[in-house]
Amino acid sequence: MATAAHRWVMTAAGEPLIRQDFDPWAPGPGEVVVEVAGCGVCHTDLGYYYDGVKTQHALPLTLGHEISGRVVAAAADADRWMGRAVIVPAVIPCGRCELCERGRYVICRQQKMPGNDIQGGFASHVRVPAYGLCRIDEQRLAAAGLELADVSVVADAVTTPYQAVARSGLGEGDVVIVVGVGGVGGYAVQVAATLGAHVIAIDVEQAKLDAVARHGAAMTLDASEIEFRELKKAIRSFVEGNALRATEWFVFECSGTAAGQRTAFGLLTFGSTLCVVGFSMEKIEIRLSNLMAFDARALGNWGCEPALYPAALDLVLDGRVQLLPFVEQHPLSEINEVFEAVHAGGVTRRAILVPERTA
Amino acid sequence: MATAAHRWVMTAAGEPLIRQDFDPWAPGPGEVVVEVAGCGVCHTDLGYYYDGVKTQHALPLTLGHEISGRVVAAAADADRWMGRAVIVPAVIPCGRCELCERGRYVICRQQKMPGNDIQGGFASHVRVPAYGLCRIDEQRLAAAGLELADVSVVADAVTTPYQAVARSGLGEGDVVIVVGVGGVGGYAVQVAATLGAHVIAIDVEQAKLDAVARHGAAMTLDASEIEFRELKKAIRSFVEGNALRATEWFVFECSGTAAGQRTAFGLLTFGSTLCVVGFSMEKIEIRLSNLMAFDARALGNWGCEPALYPAALDLVLDGRVQLLPFVEQHPLSEINEVFEAVHAGGVTRRAILVPERTA
Repeated sequence: MATAAHRWVMTAAGEPLIRQDFDPWAPGPGEVVVEVAGCGVCHTDLGYYYDGVKTQHALPLTLGHEISGRVVAAAADADRWMGRAVIVPAVIPCGRCELCERGRYVICRQQKMPGNDIQGGFASHVRVPAYGLCRIDEQRLAAAGLELADVSVVADAVTTPYQAVARSGLGEGDVVIVVGVGGVGGYAVQVAATLGAHVIAIDVEQAKLDAVARHGAAMTLDASEIEFRELKKAIRSFVEGNALRATEWFVFECSGTAAGQRTAFGLLTFGSTLCVVGFSMEKIEIRLSNLMAFDARALGNWGCEPALYPAALDLVLDGRVQLLPFVEQHPLSEINEVFEAVHAGGVTRRAILVPERTA
Repeated sequence: MATAAHRWVMTAAGEPLIRQDFDPWAPGPGEVVVEVAGCGVCHTDLGYYYDGVKTQHALPLTLGHEISGRVVAAAADADRWMGRAVIVPAVIPCGRCELCERGRYVICRQQKMPGNDIQGGFASHVRVPAYGLCRIDEQRLAAAGLELADVSVVADAVTTPYQAVARSGLGEGDVVIVVGVGGVGGYAVQVAATLGAHVIAIDVEQAKLDAVARHGAAMTLDASEIEFRELKKAIRSFVEGNALRATEWFVFECSGTAAGQRTAFGLLTFGSTLCVVGFSMEKIEIRLSNLMAFDARALGNWGCEPALYPAALDLVLDGRVQLLPFVEQHPLSEINEVFEAVHAGGVTRRAILVPERTA
């Protein structure tokens, strides 16, 4: 192959990511090589890079688990994928173990998460298992006005809240509250809205609230401006004013912060469902028995099983979930600057890193 | 009526309960008067009496929500209940509101809990809605060697873990851990065992552990004797030694203590279900995101919907769930002494208060 492959490697937390040439051209059994079109920058990547969250794979490691691209090499047993445009699931189950056989794909103990268990997508190429790849219909993609790089964020950012919403069982007319409407939470808002829910969005950044107000949120609340009591009162007024249910609210914690988790837990009421979608290392102090007193439940959600990817992608290709207002592309070579800007809160949209193609 | 009715009334937290004569003979529409055979003393009663947990009904109030007895008076629209032996549900939904219509009985906002919303069962008689009453087959009761007073604890102590187990979806071969195997948790052990689960019991009282070891628990652990790390290691060894699942453990928190909740939350692993059955006012510090990282869930459980009572009672009448090793009867007139003894931890079995019948 003429094209050299390269990737950006994390050598230690906080140290500048380093560009490295490598040779991806040897897919093992069941594997493919994907020429990366784009890879989204997720809160989880920043957790590894800034907050000392440990990756499963020892450093040095290429981060990045929101990958779209095209299959350019494949093992003999995966050659049906050659040339196809695909989304790589953020969590790739093995598909063969006892847990997978019982449909518990997301807790498969042999699962591979690019940029955590194996080399990730901040690279020109990535080698991944073919199992679970999501095929992209390029005609529909073009008709939707999207580039292949744009749908990278379907892995994780769209599919993770999609699975959380699907599991919660929410539906038409339900009250949904999304805490943290950034890269992931914004899609929680949109997916819930496609199901006919009344969605209330909470964040500490007005720009993010403005964005979801145009795409699915019926009400927005800036938690940096008001006390929790006022927040709750505002929600109650909205619910009463619109003759919605006073019970069984669905609360999605997507901020991955202790403050967001406290807010989310505090909003539980009778029969409520709390979906824990965001991750934080921090502990919070809660009265666990509120779950009992409210007959409420808290559902953790890890990734999304590959079988749900096509339906999530359909929402995007049908234009029912909008990506373009929530993403922005950057050259992969600017990865260090982009990480810093995202970490500093200066990037409202999801950053997608796009490898430069040099012939 | 010749028989005077009496009840024991709580006038203020910690103040001696006072015997009071009253007139229960006027059931309103849809109501019945039950001559109390027995009423179980629950952790929740002690919470009201010792810990300052507020009752919904203003004081003075008769506590007690685990009631069995016989219907001795009924409104015209409830007269089919006359003379029947019944269990009064610990939480009685209205059966008519929008929540009840949608099957969300346990969060009915008009629900009545004896000894909390309305006068309770530490009395010779209690007036309750007929809705949700559970009929007792007295022939089967006698054949099982049980008295009417004994099955009072089916309300709450048996049915609450029964609903929690039913909702959890646990089944044959699953690993179940019950934290706190007193009045409620002991039945969680038994009910889970009837479904073929491998049950591990944790408590801080050896006598309670000994009792469940004879009735359903495959392993017992005294948390007062060992550190949490050792506890977890012992469970892992048991699981490995018996070739059971290393994932998807079902953990029932029935102690209603902060220490028990910490233990229960700490035992979560991949795909686990935590059932929050016990109540405590105390807060605990937890990493809520563990639910996300483990793809685990926490299900709060409030009471039990009346529709599940007959199936729970069947387990008792069939002898699959044993009551007699876990209950002891005391005269209602000794209520103050019994409360003190239970509070001091001197009563290993569930105390059932039995009104003295004076002709």
